[in-house]
Amino acid sequence: MDKKEYALKKHEEWHGKLEVVSKAPITNKEELAVAYTPGVAEPCLEIAKDESLAYKYTGKWNTVAVITDGTAVLGLGDIGPSAGMPVMEGKCALFKTFADIDAIPICLNTKDVDEIVDTVYHISKSFGGINLEDISAPRCFEIERRLIDMCDIPVFHDDQHGTAIITSAAIINALKVTGREQGGHKIVISGAGSAGISIAKMFNRLGFGDVILCGHAGTIYPGAPYNNPAQEEMSKVTNKEHFAGTMAEALVGADIFVGVSKPNVLTGDMIKTMAKNPIVFALANPVPEILPDKALEAGAAVVGTGRSDFPNQVNNVIAFPGIFRGALDCRAHKITEEMKEAAAYAIAGVIPDDELRADYVLPDGFNPEVVKAVAEAVKDAYEKYGDK
Amino acid sequence: MDKKEYALKKHEEWHGKLEVVSKAPITNKEELAVAYTPGVAEPCLEIAKDESLAYKYTGKWNTVAVITDGTAVLGLGDIGPSAGMPVMEGKCALFKTFADIDAIPICLNTKDVDEIVDTVYHISKSFGGINLEDISAPRCFEIERRLIDMCDIPVFHDDQHGTAIITSAAIINALKVTGREQGGHKIVISGAGSAGISIAKMFNRLGFGDVILCGHAGTIYPGAPYNNPAQEEMSKVTNKEHFAGTMAEALVGADIFVGVSKPNVLTGDMIKTMAKNPIVFALANPVPEILPDKALEAGAAVVGTGRSDFPNQVNNVIAFPGIFRGALDCRAHKITEEMKEAAAYAIAGVIPDDELRADYVLPDGFNPEVVKAVAEAVKDAYEKYGDK
Repeated sequence: MDKKEYALKKHEEWHGKLEVVSKAPITNKEELAVAYTPGVAEPCLEIAKDESLAYKYTGKWNTVAVITDGTAVLGLGDIGPSAGMPVMEGKCALFKTFADIDAIPICLNTKDVDEIVDTVYHISKSFGGINLEDISAPRCFEIERRLIDMCDIPVFHDDQHGTAIITSAAIINALKVTGREQGGHKIVISGAGSAGISIAKMFNRLGFGDVILCGHAGTIYPGAPYNNPAQEEMSKVTNKEHFAGTMAEALVGADIFVGVSKPNVLTGDMIKTMAKNPIVFALANPVPEILPDKALEAGAAVVGTGRSDFPNQVNNVIAFPGIFRGALDCRAHKITEEMKEAAAYAIAGVIPDDELRADYVLPDGFNPEVVKAVAEAVKDAYEKYGDK
Repeated sequence: MDKKEYALKKHEEWHGKLEVVSKAPITNKEELAVAYTPGVAEPCLEIAKDESLAYKYTGKWNTVAVITDGTAVLGLGDIGPSAGMPVMEGKCALFKTFADIDAIPICLNTKDVDEIVDTVYHISKSFGGINLEDISAPRCFEIERRLIDMCDIPVFHDDQHGTAIITSAAIINALKVTGREQGGHKIVISGAGSAGISIAKMFNRLGFGDVILCGHAGTIYPGAPYNNPAQEEMSKVTNKEHFAGTMAEALVGADIFVGVSKPNVLTGDMIKTMAKNPIVFALANPVPEILPDKALEAGAAVVGTGRSDFPNQVNNVIAFPGIFRGALDCRAHKITEEMKEAAAYAIAGVIPDDELRADYVLPDGFNPEVVKAVAEAVKDAYEKYGDK
C-alpha cells in the first residue's frame, strides 16, 4: 500500500480525527443535577453578572476555533468547506497534541468576505481564540483585519503569520551561521500571496534588509499593472529601488531567497547569480522551488524547505501551538506584532549558538522545548507591551 | 456547602466540561505526515469529488452542534451567549454520555433572527446535525423553520420537540393507566410559548383530543388580543369551541393538564373541577405549577414533573440523545414528524404494559434501553417514510 492509500485508509479508520469527551461525570441523577439542571444555573448566573467569569466556569480559556472557507486548502486550492474538513480536524489534533488546547474545526459554507466576517464574529463568544486557516489571498487580509478589530479574543491567520514567524526564526539563525549581520541584506521572496506578504512584513519589522516580492508576473513595484490592492500596498514598503523585472533578474546579488510559490521555479543557475553563501528557503509543498541537493550544489550555504524529509523544515507546528498557548494563558485580546517577533526570537533561541549548523537552523517541531519557549515569549511580550 | 455552592465549585474545578481529544496519534513526523500534510490531502481530494464522503473520512457522521443565542436559558431568561455556555457545555456532555455523540457548544453573539439563521447556515457543513437550544419564542419557530429548509442536515429545537415527545409518551402511558382510550379528551396546556405550542401540535398529531392553550392573559382563541403570530396560528387548530377565559375556567371537566409555565399556577381546587382521575404534568422548573403531593391529594390520578426527586420525570435526556443517534445513524436530512411520533411511542413502550403504574409512566433517563429504543424507532421511521 502506498503512502496515499495508507493515509486514506487511516482516515477511514479514524472516522473523524477528533472526539469530544465530557470531563463532568454524569452517571446518575445527582451528578446530572450538578453538571446540568438545576446546578448549572449557578455558573450561568455568575457569568451573566461578570462576563469575564466565562474564563473561570467554562472551557473558553482553552478553546480555539479553527476556521476555513475551504478556498486555499493546502496546495489544493478552492475545494470547498466539506473537503477542507480533514485538514481542519488535523490542525485541531495538532493543537491538542502540541499545546493541550481544545480546538474545534469549523468550515464555512460561504466565500463572501462580509458573510465570513459576520459568521465568525457571531460565533466568537464561544471561544478563547480563533485560528483562521487556508483562506485565499487577498481576501484573508481583509477578513483577518476586520475580525481582529471586532472580536475581543485573538484572531490569527496561521498561513500568514505562522510561516512568517518560523521563516524569520530560520533567517535569524541562518544569518549567524553564514557570519552575517542582521541588517542590510537583499532578499527575494517568490510568491506574493498571503504567506509571501506576511513574511515580507515580518522581515521588515526584524530589519533584515530590502525585500523584493515577486508574483507570477514579476516583481512587485509601485503601480505594477498586475498588483492587487494588498500588493500595491506592499510595494510602498518593499523594493526600495522599484526594480521592475523577473524573479531571476531580482535575484542577482541577493543574500536570501524565500519561496512560497510553485515547484521548481528556482534553478541552480539563478542561485549562482546570488551573493556568496546565499540562504535559500524553498517552501512550496510538497515539491519545493528547488530541491535541497541542487541548491547546495549551486552554492547555497543554508537551505530549508517545508518538508519533513529534509533538514531545516519550516513546519507550522513550530509556531502556532505555542503562540496560542501563550495568548490563551495571558488572556490576551490580540496577538500583537511584538508577540510574533518574540515568538520568532524564541524559536531561533531554542538552538544554542554553539549547536547551530547549516543544516540545523530550525528546531524540530516535536522538541517539547519549542512550545514552552514560544508560549513564554508571547506571555513576556504581553507583560511588557500589552495587547494593543 | 449547599447544592448551589457545590455546583459552582465543581464548574470551577472542571474549568469547562468538555475536552477535544485527537483520535489520530501524532508523536513523530511519520504520523504527522498521515494525519496532516501531506497525507491529509487524500481524504480532502476524495471529498472534493464526492461531498458525501465527508461522512466517511471526517467526524461529520457523529458531530452535532448545540447552538443558542442565550435568550431563553433554563428559567433564567435572556442572559446572553457567554452566560449560556455552561448549559450548552452540559448539553454536549449529555450528548456524549447518553449517545456517544461528539457535540460542540456554540453561543451566538446576536439576537437578530436573520443573523442567527445566516450564521448557523454558514457553519452547518461542519456538522451532522444541529441542536438549537434555549432560543426564545416566538423567534425560535421561524429560526428552526428556515434552517430546516436551508440545511441538508437535521435541525432540531429540543426545547420544543424534546419536551413534546416525552410528554406525549407520558400521556400515552397515563391514558392506559387511567383506563382511557387515546382520543376524545379535553386537554389544557398552561404556557403558550415554544414548549406549549410544540406539545399542542404533537398532541394533535397523536389525536389525544381537543387542546386549549393558555398564555399569561388567558386561553388562546382566534383573534385573542394578546395572541402573537404563532399563537394566532395555533388558535386555528386548537380550542375548537373558541373558549375565551382563564386557565381555571378552561380546566373545568378537563382530562389532562400540562404545565410549561410558572410555579404554583395550578391549585388543588382547580384539579377538583377537572374530570375524574385527571392526568397532571406540571413541568415548570424547579418549582412546578403544583407540587405532586398536593395534586394527588386533590384527586389527580397520574402526576409528573420536570424534577428528578419526584416520579414520572419529564427529563430531556429521555428523548434527544436517541433522536440524534437515530438521525445520524441513518444520515437523515431532517427529523420528521413521523420520527418524533415514533420516538414518543418508543419511549412509552420501554415500560411493558404490565409494569405501568400511576407513578411509573415514564422510563428513567438513565435506563440504557431508552436511547436504543428511540434511535431504532427513528431509523425505522426513516426506512418507512423517508425524511421529507
